[in-house]
This record gives sequence, C-alpha cells and structure tokens, in this order.
Amino acid sequence: MTDDSAKAAKAASASGPGPRFTDLVQALPAAVPFVGPDTMERQSGQPFRVRLGANENGFGPSPLAIRAMQDAVAEVWKYGDGESHDLRAALSKHLDVPMANLLVGEGIDGLLGVLVRLTVAPGDRVVTSAGAYPTFNYHVTGHGGELVTRPYVEDREDPASLFAAARDSGAKLVYLANPDNPMGTWHEGPALEAALNDLPTGTTLVLDEAYIEFAPKGTAAPIAPRIDPEDGRVIRMRTFSKAYGLAGARIGYIIAPAHVIEAFHKLRNHFGVNRLAQAGALAALKDQAHLDWVVDQVARARERLAAIAADEGLRALPSAANFVAIDCGGDPGPDGKMLAHRVLEALNRRGVFVRMPFVAPQNRCIRVTCGTPEDLDLFTREFPPALAEARGDHAAQVAG
Amino acid sequence: MTDDSAKAAKAASASGPGPRFTDLVQALPAAVPFVGPDTMERQSGQPFRVRLGANENGFGPSPLAIRAMQDAVAEVWKYGDGESHDLRAALSKHLDVPMANLLVGEGIDGLLGVLVRLTVAPGDRVVTSAGAYPTFNYHVTGHGGELVTRPYVEDREDPASLFAAARDSGAKLVYLANPDNPMGTWHEGPALEAALNDLPTGTTLVLDEAYIEFAPKGTAAPIAPRIDPEDGRVIRMRTFSKAYGLAGARIGYIIAPAHVIEAFHKLRNHFGVNRLAQAGALAALKDQAHLDWVVDQVARARERLAAIAADEGLRALPSAANFVAIDCGGDPGPDGKMLAHRVLEALNRRGVFVRMPFVAPQNRCIRVTCGTPEDLDLFTREFPPALAEARGDHAAQVAG
Repeated sequence: MTDDSAKAAKAASASGPGPRFTDLVQALPAAVPFVGPDTMERQSGQPFRVRLGANENGFGPSPLAIRAMQDAVAEVWKYGDGESHDLRAALSKHLDVPMANLLVGEGIDGLLGVLVRLTVAPGDRVVTSAGAYPTFNYHVTGHGGELVTRPYVEDREDPASLFAAARDSGAKLVYLANPDNPMGTWHEGPALEAALNDLPTGTTLVLDEAYIEFAPKGTAAPIAPRIDPEDGRVIRMRTFSKAYGLAGARIGYIIAPAHVIEAFHKLRNHFGVNRLAQAGALAALKDQAHLDWVVDQVARARERLAAIAADEGLRALPSAANFVAIDCGGDPGPDGKMLAHRVLEALNRRGVFVRMPFVAPQNRCIRVTCGTPEDLDLFTREFPPALAEARGDHAAQVAG
Repeated sequence: MTDDSAKAAKAASASGPGPRFTDLVQALPAAVPFVGPDTMERQSGQPFRVRLGANENGFGPSPLAIRAMQDAVAEVWKYGDGESHDLRAALSKHLDVPMANLLVGEGIDGLLGVLVRLTVAPGDRVVTSAGAYPTFNYHVTGHGGELVTRPYVEDREDPASLFAAARDSGAKLVYLANPDNPMGTWHEGPALEAALNDLPTGTTLVLDEAYIEFAPKGTAAPIAPRIDPEDGRVIRMRTFSKAYGLAGARIGYIIAPAHVIEAFHKLRNHFGVNRLAQAGALAALKDQAHLDWVVDQVARARERLAAIAADEGLRALPSAANFVAIDCGGDPGPDGKMLAHRVLEALNRRGVFVRMPFVAPQNRCIRVTCGTPEDLDLFTREFPPALAEARGDHAAQVAG
C-alpha cells in the first residue's frame, strides 16, 4: 500500500457517511424551481442577446435608487438594519398601513419560505392553481406539505374553485397571484374582496401581489387599500423586484396582521436583508414619478407585443403585469411537444430568452417580458423567423 | 350602531383568527438572537459615535470590491446567478477545493438555517458551547431541536467535552467556531484535526470559520487545507462579512462533501443571493493584498486594545479574530450584574457600541471589535472614564 492509498483508505473509513438528514429531506427529490438564465447561458455556451424570460424590469430602477445604492456601498462593511426601520416607515406612509403590519424580507421567495415554515407541517394541505408559481410549491413540498391543485378557468386563477378546494381539503393556505404569473390575467379588487367571503375559516389567502404596480387602475390595483391589514384571512406579498426594478437586490415585504408579523419574527433571518437593498428600495419608493414612467412604458410594451403577435396571426392575452402570454395555439405533436415549446426553443437558439407556462392548457403560450423598445426591436426581428421555424418543425412532426 | 362600528364588527367577525401556525411555531417564544445597533440607537435616541460591537470590519472591503459593486448597480434589475458560478469558480481556485464542494449563500446565518433544517427534526439533539453563537441556537430551537451545552474550558470551546456530549446525547450536529466568538480564542489546525477522531459516528461538526482569515499562521489558519472537503464529518462555514468587509452584502459559503451540497439544493432559496454581493465578493477575493493589509491592521488593533486594557490594569485575552475580549474580572453585584456589564452600559451611554458574552464566566469580559486607528483613538479616550464610572457603580452596589 502506498502512502497515498493508505491515506485515502484512512480518510474514507474515518470520514463516515456525512450528516443524518431528516426523514423529510431524505424523501425529497433534488428539485430546482427554475433553471436560471445564467445557467442556461453556460449550458448552451452562448449568452442571451436579450432577457425577456424572467419578468425583470429592463427599464431599471429610479436613478435615485441607483445613486443611493452606489453611495451605500461605502458603508457595506456594516450589517443592514435588522428591522429595515426606515423603509418600513416610508412604506407605512406610502401605503397608509401601520408599521406593525409591515415586514421587510429577502424578496417574496424568502418571505414565502418563512410563511410556509410557519404554517405547514408534514401532511398539511395547501391549495394552488395547476401551473402557478413553482417556487411557492417548492417551499410547500420542502416542508412536507401536500399540494392540492385546481385548473385555471379561462386562463385565470379561479378563487371560487380554489376556495372550495381549500374547504374540501382543510387547507391551511391558498395561494393566489393577482395579477397572475404566468398568464398576466387578473381579478378586479372588489370581486376578489367579495370572493373572500367564501374563504373557509382556518384557511389563509396568500395573495402574491408581485406585479400589482403594473395593474391599470380599475383592474387589480384597487385591491390594495380595500383589504384591512388586520384582516386575518389575507397575507399580501409585495416586492421591489418588478416595477421598482430591483430584482438583483432581493427585497420585498408583506402586509399582514400585527400578530402574524410577530410570528414571522420567531423564524425569520433577522439580519438577512442587505444594506444596499434597503437603501435602494427606500430611494425607489420615493421616486413615484419614475415608477409611473416605468408603468407607462410597460403598458406600451404590452400593446406592442400584442401587435407583434397579431402580425403573425396570434393572440396575446390581456395582461395587467410586465409580461404577455402569446397564444401559439394548437395541439401537441406526436412527441408531446406544443408549438409554443418549439417557438420558445427557437427563440432561445436565437439568443432571445423567454419562458412558457408549465401546465396544459396554458402551455400553448409563450411568456414574453415587456422589455425596452430596443429589446422589442430585437424581438420583432427574431420572432417571425423563430415562429416559422417552429411551425415547420411542428408540421413535420405532425406529418411524420 | 354607527356605520363605522358596524363595519368594524363585520371586519372582526369576518376576518377570523389568522393563520393556523404549526404546533412547533405556537410553542416558540418570540425571540430575537440579537438586538442590532440600529435598533439600540433608535431606542436610546442617540446614534453611536463608533461601532465596535458587531465585529464589522471598519477598514472596509477592497476598493476593487467597492468599484465592482458600484458598477454592478447598473444591472441590479437582473436577478443574480442562482449558482453564483463565477464566485464559486474563483473560490475553487483560491482554496484548491473542487466547485462541487462549494455552495454560496446569503451569509453564514442563512446557511446555518438551511443546514439545521436539513438535519434537525423536533427532539433531535445538537451540541454547542454555553455562550456560543446565539443565531445558531435560534435556528436549532426554531426547528424543535434540543440544545445540549457544555461550558468553555479556560475561555476556549472544548472539542473533547463537546464531542463526548454528542456521543452521550446522540447529537446530529456539534457547533464549534474556530476562532471562537465571543472570546477570540482558537484551536490549532492539527489539534482540531486530531480531535475529529473522537467525533462520534453520526455526528457532524459544523465548523464556523467566520473569522478564519484573521487567524495568524500557525494558529487556526492551517486548518483550511488540512481537512478533505469530502470528509463527511465536517461542514465548514465561511463568510465575506468579516475579513473581506462585506457584512452588509450578505454573502458567505460552505465547504462540504458534494452529496451534502446536493442536499442543500433541495431546500435552499435558489435565487436568494443578491447580484451586488456576488460582484463584490468576487472582486474582494481577487484582492488578497487588501486582505493582507486588513489582517495586519487588525493585528495591530488587537495589540493596541491589549495595551489600552493593560493601562487600566486589565487583561485582554489573546485573540485570533477581529475582536478582543477584555477581562473586567470580579463577581456580580447584589443586583446580579457583572462589572463588565456596567462597563458596557457606560460605554454605550458614551456612544461607544460594544457587546459582552452572555454566559458566566465569560460574562466577566467585554468584547471590543478591532476598529480603525480613529475608532480606537475614541475608545482610548472613552474607556478609562467609562471604566471608572462602572467601577464606582459596582462598588456602590457591593457596599450598598
């Protein structure tokens, strides 16, 4: 036995099998909610020419937020404020919601994780729409919860059937995004408020309002002031990632009854929000003129994407978010693949990053982010040939 | 009944009691591992003149890291790379550890949270030193784990008694910080490696190396290359918060066997690391000259703090970290308060933020961060009168 092999044998015998994971963890599959665009670029060996797949905001944050973050870098050696006090105070004023009803966290993904941990023990039921937000589902599964799903109805999440499923299953949580991702559809504030009367006692509505700032007045937008923050039936999730353009900063917040916020304090990572995000979000919130400009630009981009689709004989679904679902129609090929999937792949090959819904019948669509005019110039050029290519492949499969 | 009171009554009856929290959460106390300095400032209504209580690095990050973060702000509208690929590649090269053994997360606090969730089910035992890192304990308690503690021995964490306690209790994890916080003491690499032979099978050592870069060569530092990253007995935690000066950016990493890293992927928040932190950490890692300068400055500050203590007849404990425990000695007063506690309060009143260990006999010390020369100029002025004041109060209590 050489010295090296003796050493290796000793290490192997001494090192043991590693940590004893919980039964729950051992039963979990290795799952990633999404493959990110950076990973996709590395896999293909080719950078995307335009990112229209993650519903990021290419118009960017307020110049005031950019400056605030650049200035804050000088103090990045200090931990952030564990209470995000100044941001919560500004949000309280902006939303007319008491500070006791506000909690800032590391984006909606992180906040959803804490909420699920607060409520879901193994075997507990949680209701969501089939094809809704995968990261929420990931958290539920990761805590041993059982997902109960209901289909979209006419491309909208359906509160009536979701709440009925909650009643039937005794679910602790129902997830609903308004506006919805991936379809961009929405429920008007008063209708959703009225639907709450059918939410069963003991079920809490997780209302994901990540895209709420994009919603035109008179659609989803009026929901915000209409639900009492002390209403124990609803926990609302908001973010600076979308309309405020700070996805890379990882900062969001919840609006919930004060006793629910107190419960979050029992489990949250108290010093998890980074100092630059706190500075950026505070400055971004103060520049509502920039927000209005972004919302207007996004509205124009929605119209332009609808026109690009119409030029190819396709329909874009009405959207209250910063993305548009373009209905590519049709049935799956013999290989099970939808035309939309082939369009997505053809676009990706051309350096255009878009995504598509995961579940039928929404998977007849591709989902395209409302990019800048330059982004959409490129999309205008690449979409028709990508579609033609995909249609050719699809026809060949169907014929084959 | 007025309209308002009718509305309030309706809201109260309709709103229900709020979410059904898990049994575990209901049993948890409302606990915060630390009260942060920003909260303390708001409570006292007076900002600190100098922050020497959170072991932040007032020398700041590399100028290259500052520039990289400022540049990255222009792209903060994009999510960060979910794999932190470039940073992991650079760490792999720097540490000579395969990328498969590295995972980047939102600081050690966040990574400890995932590790505890991976391993600790209700009733599982975890061993730590009495008075060691409260945030780790917070995670364990938050997952229903039972903490088994062993005392420090001569102000050092004691692997022999910790590992024996793990054997007796069947613990899944043992926590050990090297260098230790709050005492600054350390174990030399070979000694710790040898001690691993007494780690019981089925127990994993969580080796918190937050301060490892400050450790003089020949003390704790050689541990790094000596443990095989595939050794399943050990999970090492590192951070950019301390020597690299990026506490406010929230970024750290673990070194662990590849199958353990895979398990982290089952539960971690895949897009939780912020883009600016990724850029800053990558640039900071590349500027080892700046790191060396910081480490040298910290070593000088340790010596200066020891001299300041000696001038007052007090002893500073030898430290391998960026803070020093100053032994104020003595017994508690009739009110149960240690002299060190009074010194801390007197310093805080004078605008000097320091902390102290929570548990006897370590609570005879105050813990002072190795600040910049200007920071220590201020400490030099304020420490003697604060000490005199505290000694007066303590004597009065003892006499009274």
